[in-house]
Amino acid sequence: MSQNIYDDPDFFAGYMTLDRQVRGHDGAAEWPSIRAMLPDLRGARAVDLGCGAGWFTRFAAEQGAAQVVGIDVSTNMLERARSETTSSVVDYQRCDLDELSLDSRSLDLAYSSLTLHYVCDLDRLLAAIADALVVGGALVFSVEHPIYSAPTAQSFVTADDGSRYWPLDNYLVEGERVTEWFVDGVKKQHRTIATYVNSVVAAGFVVDELIEWGPTAEDVMAAPALADDRHRPWFLLVRATRVD
Amino acid sequence: MSQNIYDDPDFFAGYMTLDRQVRGHDGAAEWPSIRAMLPDLRGARAVDLGCGAGWFTRFAAEQGAAQVVGIDVSTNMLERARSETTSSVVDYQRCDLDELSLDSRSLDLAYSSLTLHYVCDLDRLLAAIADALVVGGALVFSVEHPIYSAPTAQSFVTADDGSRYWPLDNYLVEGERVTEWFVDGVKKQHRTIATYVNSVVAAGFVVDELIEWGPTAEDVMAAPALADDRHRPWFLLVRATRVD
Repeated sequence: MSQNIYDDPDFFAGYMTLDRQVRGHDGAAEWPSIRAMLPDLRGARAVDLGCGAGWFTRFAAEQGAAQVVGIDVSTNMLERARSETTSSVVDYQRCDLDELSLDSRSLDLAYSSLTLHYVCDLDRLLAAIADALVVGGALVFSVEHPIYSAPTAQSFVTADDGSRYWPLDNYLVEGERVTEWFVDGVKKQHRTIATYVNSVVAAGFVVDELIEWGPTAEDVMAAPALADDRHRPWFLLVRATRVD
Repeated sequence: MSQNIYDDPDFFAGYMTLDRQVRGHDGAAEWPSIRAMLPDLRGARAVDLGCGAGWFTRFAAEQGAAQVVGIDVSTNMLERARSETTSSVVDYQRCDLDELSLDSRSLDLAYSSLTLHYVCDLDRLLAAIADALVVGGALVFSVEHPIYSAPTAQSFVTADDGSRYWPLDNYLVEGERVTEWFVDGVKKQHRTIATYVNSVVAAGFVVDELIEWGPTAEDVMAAPALADDRHRPWFLLVRATRVD
């Protein structure tokens, strides 16, 4: 069972101040990259695993999806999602992703944004997703980048000469990381890039593209405060296709 | 054109003291992992890109390969390889991998150990490899891990509390890295994991497996001096299959 930190009132209050919660996709810097990984949504049957406040489910409906199911474990999030969604093609369901089951060959797209690093049994979930997708269906997801999730101390160090670096340790030590994020005790699962890729392949997918997302050199010129984020990626984005 | 540092006498003298040069595969800690990625070599036509002293070409011949071509830019290395190879199925050729051409559909396996990080135009080389492999043929290679090759300072830092970490910076800044390794001025190309994977896919391969190679927890129990190497991987290993 994954931790349901989003139903912690203090966490939720803090989380909802994030730009990506206030402004949705416009406040999520990686959105243009993950959007470019999506298949044509017209007529598609899609699921959003960890749908949060429903930004993606509404986007998919606007793009012409035939059916979109948003799944989340947080009642706080689902309440917010339902209150802001009017489309008749969107449905929401409460479920812990460690216990998810889906109908076989019922989906064209499985989408997940910054959620799978909470899931304890990734292989089980990927098998369920693979079974639910039609052959040729797409899996598109983002997670906290393993370089970001690995270290004991997840903050930059300033060297004596003023240069900045990310103090990477325990990259190869997979498993639970307990961090402070709005509240103490937020639990995430650290996995290496190889584990993500190999698990996706083992579930029956072909990997189409990886993006280790961070600002570009041009982004940093426009916003110098982003310079640190060229040192280590924020997110890992994966696009894969279900094969038989 | 890639740098030919292996024909620098001081570099070569130092390099040949490495355990993997003295003892071959028995001195290369990642060898069991990369060996497990290899297809059946019996009857196979194989090329080793960056063959060095010929350890792999001789191994492939011993395993029953029908034809093995070792390619390297270093005359020092090729002289050593030829002097230690007696098998009639092995041939050696001198070539800069940035200028390599191979016969179409002539190979079952392209192998490369710790060489592709010297190559300037990876996409060009991967296209040549893809053209040379039969459909279903395998590409198996290792490179210095991008977390290893990225930083300005490629050595561990000891924090005030005695803990150790790898000072990662510039991971997303791809391009040439000039380091000291036996001699000053050794030039390597830093690429992210995503770039390696996406380039392999773009060339016409399906990615079968990634390994971010470092010692296991058991390895560290047996040899505590390896503890640092759980913090960041040494090598990235890739296995991919040519598809049409």
